[in-house]
Amino acid sequence: MRIGILIFDGVEELDFVGPWEVFSYVNKVQAHPTRMLLVAPSAPVQAYNGLRVLPDCTLGDCPRLDTLIVPGGKGRLQAMHDPMILDFLRERYEGLQFLGSVCTGALILAEAGLLDGRCATTHHTALDELGGYPSITVRPDRVVRDGNVLSAAGVTAGIDLAFQLVEELFGTDVALAVDRGIEFDRYTKT
Amino acid sequence: MRIGILIFDGVEELDFVGPWEVFSYVNKVQAHPTRMLLVAPSAPVQAYNGLRVLPDCTLGDCPRLDTLIVPGGKGRLQAMHDPMILDFLRERYEGLQFLGSVCTGALILAEAGLLDGRCATTHHTALDELGGYPSITVRPDRVVRDGNVLSAAGVTAGIDLAFQLVEELFGTDVALAVDRGIEFDRYTKT
Repeated sequence: MRIGILIFDGVEELDFVGPWEVFSYVNKVQAHPTRMLLVAPSAPVQAYNGLRVLPDCTLGDCPRLDTLIVPGGKGRLQAMHDPMILDFLRERYEGLQFLGSVCTGALILAEAGLLDGRCATTHHTALDELGGYPSITVRPDRVVRDGNVLSAAGVTAGIDLAFQLVEELFGTDVALAVDRGIEFDRYTKT
Repeated sequence: MRIGILIFDGVEELDFVGPWEVFSYVNKVQAHPTRMLLVAPSAPVQAYNGLRVLPDCTLGDCPRLDTLIVPGGKGRLQAMHDPMILDFLRERYEGLQFLGSVCTGALILAEAGLLDGRCATTHHTALDELGGYPSITVRPDRVVRDGNVLSAAGVTAGIDLAFQLVEELFGTDVALAVDRGIEFDRYTKT
């Protein structure tokens, strides 16, 4: 199973490393490997707070993906108007089992038309902006699922989105083991 | 104020990106900039789950730091026996306001002798190993502070350690604003 995360200059670090960690940790608790890939329009990627990351593939040579996660951050203001990124998302969506956004990554999906007719959420400061798309119903929950498209609220909510997908893809026992492994205590908090 | 995070091959991604995000986010909510630096013995650094990161400086050319965070991950098994890393930590400790470890990063501090006579914690699977150092008192809390040395439990506990330091260094209002910004809800959960 291949899980891709789109990154771009100005992406918020924890928006993408949160899901990266949760999905990657599955490989420590079960036998069937999850292949993680960072996909980016250019390299290296300079994240918003200065972290410099080498992506694994470009938009052009990215292999088939089963799940794709789109994080946010200030850099989304450019990314959401980048035709190469929008085309990539629209083309890839057809072959995906799941598409997810974290934080203001929802605005990138919105511009790509991939939230049309759906419920979605985003960072609390961007809920009004997301509501400006008349075909999108904003629901200010931590994670919103509508069909095979999931969206998370701000930054750390991406960790919860990843857990929701791990439960669905690998089962509750695997999700519990990952939760224990990264000591997030998602399932032990009441 | 300069906050450094030591990284090395095999470092666990969220161990260092969690604190990186929390400390960096301070710059979005207050005027006095926090300079974040990733310090590494070599470049690029390949983290345990495959993330490839370009550090900002080497052990040799790292500027003066006020706070230094040491994450863990499988790569700590080599890092904790690397004389260059251990010397770096011992030398830098003298000038630090705070030293912190995340997850099994505590074992690196232990090998450097920097936890001697102190209480500390680590990832739950490494508590017994940490207890094998006769001069260290293991306390299995989420964050343990002993003087100016703090240690966190596994992976996501590094986020809580960073919040504890943000409170101390920048005040509760800044910590609350960062918490709201990254929607971690540390202070709103009961």
